[in-house]
Parts: sequence; structure tokens; C-alpha cells
Amino acid sequence: MALSIIGAHIGYLRYVSTHGGGRREHLIYKNLRNMSEKRTIRIGLLGFGVVGQGVWKNIEKNRIALEYRLGAQLDITEVVVKNLGREREVVIPPKSISDDARRVVDNPDIDIVCELMGGKGEALELTRRALEQGKIVVTANKALICEHGEELFEIARQKGGHYFYEASVAGGIPIIKTIREALVANRFKLIFGILNGTSNYILTRMEREGLSFEATLGDARKLGYVEADEALDLDGIDAAHKAVILAYLAHGKWVRLDEIICEGIREITGEDIEIAAQLGYKIKLLAVIARDFEANKLSVRLHPALISKKEVIAGVDEVYNGVSVTGDVVGTTVLIGRGAGQDATSSSVISDIADAVFMLQGAPAPVISEEDEATYQKLADGLELADKASLKGRYYFRIHVRDEEGVLAKISEIMAKGHISFATVNQKELEDGTAKIMVTTHITDEASVMQVKTALSEQSAVIGRPVSFRIFDPNTQA
Amino acid sequence: MALSIIGAHIGYLRYVSTHGGGRREHLIYKNLRNMSEKRTIRIGLLGFGVVGQGVWKNIEKNRIALEYRLGAQLDITEVVVKNLGREREVVIPPKSISDDARRVVDNPDIDIVCELMGGKGEALELTRRALEQGKIVVTANKALICEHGEELFEIARQKGGHYFYEASVAGGIPIIKTIREALVANRFKLIFGILNGTSNYILTRMEREGLSFEATLGDARKLGYVEADEALDLDGIDAAHKAVILAYLAHGKWVRLDEIICEGIREITGEDIEIAAQLGYKIKLLAVIARDFEANKLSVRLHPALISKKEVIAGVDEVYNGVSVTGDVVGTTVLIGRGAGQDATSSSVISDIADAVFMLQGAPAPVISEEDEATYQKLADGLELADKASLKGRYYFRIHVRDEEGVLAKISEIMAKGHISFATVNQKELEDGTAKIMVTTHITDEASVMQVKTALSEQSAVIGRPVSFRIFDPNTQA
Repeated sequence: MALSIIGAHIGYLRYVSTHGGGRREHLIYKNLRNMSEKRTIRIGLLGFGVVGQGVWKNIEKNRIALEYRLGAQLDITEVVVKNLGREREVVIPPKSISDDARRVVDNPDIDIVCELMGGKGEALELTRRALEQGKIVVTANKALICEHGEELFEIARQKGGHYFYEASVAGGIPIIKTIREALVANRFKLIFGILNGTSNYILTRMEREGLSFEATLGDARKLGYVEADEALDLDGIDAAHKAVILAYLAHGKWVRLDEIICEGIREITGEDIEIAAQLGYKIKLLAVIARDFEANKLSVRLHPALISKKEVIAGVDEVYNGVSVTGDVVGTTVLIGRGAGQDATSSSVISDIADAVFMLQGAPAPVISEEDEATYQKLADGLELADKASLKGRYYFRIHVRDEEGVLAKISEIMAKGHISFATVNQKELEDGTAKIMVTTHITDEASVMQVKTALSEQSAVIGRPVSFRIFDPNTQA
Repeated sequence: MALSIIGAHIGYLRYVSTHGGGRREHLIYKNLRNMSEKRTIRIGLLGFGVVGQGVWKNIEKNRIALEYRLGAQLDITEVVVKNLGREREVVIPPKSISDDARRVVDNPDIDIVCELMGGKGEALELTRRALEQGKIVVTANKALICEHGEELFEIARQKGGHYFYEASVAGGIPIIKTIREALVANRFKLIFGILNGTSNYILTRMEREGLSFEATLGDARKLGYVEADEALDLDGIDAAHKAVILAYLAHGKWVRLDEIICEGIREITGEDIEIAAQLGYKIKLLAVIARDFEANKLSVRLHPALISKKEVIAGVDEVYNGVSVTGDVVGTTVLIGRGAGQDATSSSVISDIADAVFMLQGAPAPVISEEDEATYQKLADGLELADKASLKGRYYFRIHVRDEEGVLAKISEIMAKGHISFATVNQKELEDGTAKIMVTTHITDEASVMQVKTALSEQSAVIGRPVSFRIFDPNTQA
């Protein structure tokens, strides 16, 4: 057999092997320069906020061990910021810092681009440009991947670059690597968990201290836990971004945010948490990615849910995140850790940098033939998003009523008409002469629930629209 | 710069790059044959018992997705068994099965050797021989790594092979990959958890059903949960093997089994579990790997311990394993999953095979220079195993006494002399006129505990030797 190198592109070697009559082209990632310069890997940071400074600080902190493990030297060559004048906790040499993104993105010396600026405008432009040039990009930007991942991964594939995103989901928890590498033997029936630390912190304090949503939110704001755009944390959008990414990773299908159920925590009250506790549940904001392989349906959703206290995920409190992954080979594996914060997130960014270094030192570019692609696509062929309305399960209702005679009978009647039957009922009298009725149901479906809520809200005895939460049982999901 | 390939060894290319005055040698794993034959990776299995059959079955099950993800075809070319006549659940083509290990170990066509036979005699011989030839070996054999890992990893390093061992610790939980890759940015202050499913199953049933150790053990035997050599499960040896492996992985230091505390679950009684529960604890068989970076001491131990019910690890029940890893960057991450069984273990073996495939397709052999080695070794320089006797913490005692006047006073006096003070005391009268006194202590040290136990057992009022368990608090470990 013969082997000849036929080209050295931006990030890789192109070579041909021949054997008998066969001829095959290969790519190997290889930054040629690095081979002779003591394997120095040059990194450019786009953005130097909390995470960027964390990456710098933590590479410095454990540099010796890290460089030994990688067999390479790491050099953060360029840092790009918006505002050069801003004071920062981490002080870096003036020659390394600029406000000119081209010094990273268009710089042939930069091997790895870390996009840690966030947002979707400039971050998209720069990520696109870096990937177009075959560079490796590491990101923590879940919103960007969620909305533009399909395009960006495709550019990376075509240009021989790579787009790493461990830090985008669940901070320091290695959920991307676990699904992609450690559980490579598996197909994933169910992935669910807590993917937003801020909302989990609020729910935990409401539960433990009996505080209202508003009071706890105030504290969370003071602690700097809530994003500037509060909808990200409170309306579930941040966690939904992450659910979309996990759905793509596990099932190869991009779903749009507007196609899925995405409900936040604003409607949860102390009494919901209290009644749930009495019934053996906690209320958590859950991301659920469930695949029914027989029907070839995928359900991706993000909503508060009552979950049995016996489930490990129910015990994930405060700012922690937790993900439960059920594979058809491994069974159920649960990962719990910090979901955000400078250090946890930078730990994941550095882990992606490490994988990128591994690639730059010779790991193969996945050259996927059309034939391979076609074979694989058959697995996802016809995979459809499950109809939201057909979602089945048990529900919890909170109905605010005027405390009139026969009101419970009326409610029962309406629910029975909608084919929803009660599992438990709790009633709580309020001082103003109204009452709250809390009901859990037997198994029903989303469409019935919507219909019954509308019917109930049309009753004169019912004040406002009833609130409902799903009861999540991982054992009955598909 | 110039690049020239100077050799094609068994599993890799050797090439030289020159740049200016510099010259550097590199290795790239590469099975040359595979490059022209549609990237078929040939695997040999040594052993075809529970795990071996699981690997076969689960590769077949998800072959299309797996081969797509790997960009390679997997061919289990040779299976070696001891007894050709035995009936097996998985039937494989007769041409692939033999009782001749040379067909795997000495076969230049085999890229990856999976040692799934267990034991330390032949398995050691064959692993050594495969690694001597620069092959990649994947193993689930914790006993072998624990006792011969130092030699085997060194052979792999020298010969350019690799020794993968994800399946050796905590079955389907990707703890090796997580520590080695995902948390590469970290140094590890504390790793602890439950690493033996059988003993955890026994403790869980004792707790939930109030059964005795003996009764539960009987059931566990019937279910086939207990290893033929029962000491592995009941005396903590299996979990201690795994603790030794994790200590090496996280700290680069091999400790010997006979240097560490290794205590099993045989002494735990229902009343210990009951009293612990009243005090807010569960009793779990814990592996602890704690490093004190300031004093440069490493504590590796395996013993039953009372652990607060609030800790996530305390909630890991039945046959599940759980590991808590505290890194100096990421904080605490917990992984929970099946610790044993055909499918979970084979999921990890297949994940190692996937990493091996990645390597065979061009990932770099870590060519570590003496200089690099020396720099890194400084981090572990002088790292010593902590003195067992100096281990500090709180303890639980169970003391069986004749129910005589003043016996509690006597016990208090002896403990006070040994500088151990009570935190709680429970006394339980038995029908035979004796009593059991259960005590938890404030912080003391191992040496004092040993001394006090001896002093107590010399008292005429004390029956037998008191039993003690440590109380483990992850927040005060170092």
C-alpha cells in the first residue's frame, strides 16, 4: 500500500492511500506550524466577561497539569472585548487585548476560537466566519446554537472545522460528552432534567422557606442570579434552548423553539408546592426529550412539573442542574452539578479546548460519505415531533372559586365531561370568602386539559383561568 | 517546514517534522490496512461470558448508529473462550470462535483486544502480550488494573499502545472519561461514592425492610448478585480495587490494597441502620479518595460510613452506584447509574472501543518527553499516603454491655480518657438482660478510636469488641 500527502489545508492534512485497486482520501486535522513549535496551541477569546475571565484564570491555575495531560502548551494569544476601558478582575498583557475581532477570527495563527461574548448578532457573524475558515470554535452560547446550530454545524462539517459546545448545556455537567461519547452505544428513549439554575434556586427557596415567587425572585435578582433578560430564566427559554440542543445531539433533529411546549415558573405559588409536597411530589422546571422509537415520534418540552420525591432529579435543589439519561443499553444514568457560574462553565470550556487540542494534534476529521449519511438518516427517517395536544399524563389543577354551594360538584361535572377524573382533591378556604381547589387527575391528555380549563374559566363560580401543571413520571414517558 | 513519514509500526505512523533548526518526532496511531479497506476495525474478545456477550449483542443492536458515529465499521473478528462446548445465549459464527488466545493477541489484523475474561493469571499474561505489541486493550478487569496497572500502563506508554478501562469502575457510569476528559481543567480534592452494587443492594433492603444482613445476603445470592468470591462484595475488596484505580487516575499515584483501610459491610446490623436513620443518616459502603494539596497527602479508603441523608450520594440505593467528584474548578459533580450488569458494563466497553477507533483513525499517541514527565511529576512530588491513624472525623459506636449499674458512666470515662466526647447516646435493652449502647462522637481520630475500642473490650461489663463506623461529611474532608 502507498500513502501520499496531497495537501495541507488550513487545519488539516489531506492524504491518499492506495491498496490493491482501491484509493481513498483522508483528512487529518493538523496544524502544521504547531508540530515544530513545541505544540503550542493558540487560542483566541471573543468576549472577556465572566466566563472568558474564568477560562483565563483557570487555565493559569492548573496550567502545568493541564498542559501535561494535553501534551501541548496553551497560549491565549488574543482576547477581544467590546470596551477596552472597562476594569476587569483578570488583568492580561495589553498586547493580547483588543477590540478587533479580526485579530482572532481572521488570524491564521489562532487554532481555537472561543466565542464567549453571547448574543446572536455579532456572535453569529463571527462564529460563521471562523467556521468558514475551517477553524475550531468553542462556545457557551446556547441561544445561538438553538437558533443557528443547523447552519453552523453544517459549515463546520463542510469546511473541516468543528463546533464544540459542552458549556452551552448545564454548565459544569459533562452532558454533551456523556451523550456523544460515553453513551455512544445507546439510543436515547428519555432524557430529562433541570437545566436552569436560577429557576431551580427560586423553587427551592419557595419550598424550603415558604416564600412567595415574588419575594424569592427579589433575592435572586440581588444575588445577580437572574439574567438581564428575565424571560430567559423565568419563562423557561434558557432551559428550552438547552433542551433543543440535547434533542439535536441525541436524535439528530433540530426542533424550533416555537414548535415546543415552553412554560416557565411564574405561575407556581407556595400552595402548589405545599400540596405537591403533601402528595409526595416536588415541583421542578423540567426539560423533557422523549422518543418513541416505535411510533418514531420525538417530544421535546420544557415546563414545570410535579415529580415524585423518590426520583433523584427531584432532589436536585438550589442552583444545581441535573440530567437523567435513559439509554437502551446503559439504563438510566444521572448527572448532577453546577449549571452555571464562572468556574463551572469555564471548566466545560476548557474541556472542549482539550478536545480541540486532541483534534489539532492529529485526530481525524470525520469524513462522512453520502452513503454513510444516507444509511444513518434512515434511523431518523420520518422522525416527527409528537403532537403537543396528544401528550398524555397526569395533571395537577389549581382552581380559584367563589365559595358557593355545589361548586365542587360543578367542577367535577365539567371535568368528567372532558373525560378527566380526579385522583386527589384539596380545598383551601381563603379569608376573602373564596377558595382554592387543588386537584390531581388520573391519566388524560393535553387537549382535554386545555378544553376543560377553558370550560372551567367560563363558569361564573370560577375566578380567572385555572392553572395546571403536568405530573411527570419518567417510567411512563415515551 | 518539512514532514516525512519515517516508519509505519504496528499501530501507528512515525513521522518527523522539521522547522528552522527544530526537529521533532511524532507518532500517529494508524492501522495502515484500515485506511484502504473501508475503515473496518477488527476487534478480538478474550472471554465471552456475561460482558463479552453483552458487547456483541449491543454492537449488533445499534450497529448502524454506532458505525455512523464512529465513521468506521466494527468487526468482532475473533472470540476466544475457555470452553468451546458451553452453550451461550449469543450464538456467533463458528469460524469466529476458538479457544486459542493467540488468534487475538498475536494476530496483526486485530486492532483492539477486549479482555473480558477476568481473573489475574491468564488475563495478565495476555494483556501484557497484547500491549507489548502496541495493541489497544479495552478491559473491565478492576482487580487486574488495581494490582498490575502500573506495569501495564507503562508497557502501553512505551509501546505506543493504549489501555482503556472505563468499564472497570462503576459499570455504566462514565466516571473515567469524566475525570480524564470532561474535568481535565480540575485538580481533585475529593472523590467519594458507592462503587459496589451488591453491598448497596443489601444495605438498601436491610434499611427498607428491616431485614438482617444474613437474610438479605441470602436473597442477593439467589438473585445471582454476589460474586463467587464473596469477599469481593462483602469485605469491600471490589470497591477498594475501584478506589485504587480512581486514585491513580485523579492523582497519578498507585496505592496498594494492603496500604489502605478496606472494611466491608458484614458488621452492619439492622439497629445500626435504625439509629443512623433517627439521627438523619444512612449507612453506605463508601470509597473515599481525598487529597490535601497543602500537606500533599492522599487518603484512599473503603469502609461503611454514616452519611447525611441530605447528601445526594446517600440517596443512591439498590444496585446503583454513585460517585461525587469535587474539582477545584467545576465544584461538585455527581454521577449516578448502574454499577454492574451485562448491558451497563458493555455500554462502557463499547464507549472505550469508540475511543480506540478514534485513536486508530489518527488521534495522536501522547509522546511525552522526559522533560514533560519531570514537570508534571513535580505536582505529585512527595505525594504521600496519609497516615491511617491520623484520619479525623466523627464516629458511631455500638457497644454491647451487660446491663449493670454504672456501665454507661464507665464507658463515658474510658472514652473521655481517650479524648473522645459523645454527641448522642442511644440505649437499647435486649431480652437477655444485656443492652446495646449506640454512641456518636464529636471529632476525634482513628488512633483514639482504636485505642478506646481496645480499652472498652477489656471491661468486664462489655461483651465482645465494640463495633465502630465512621461518619462521613464531604464538607470537612481533605
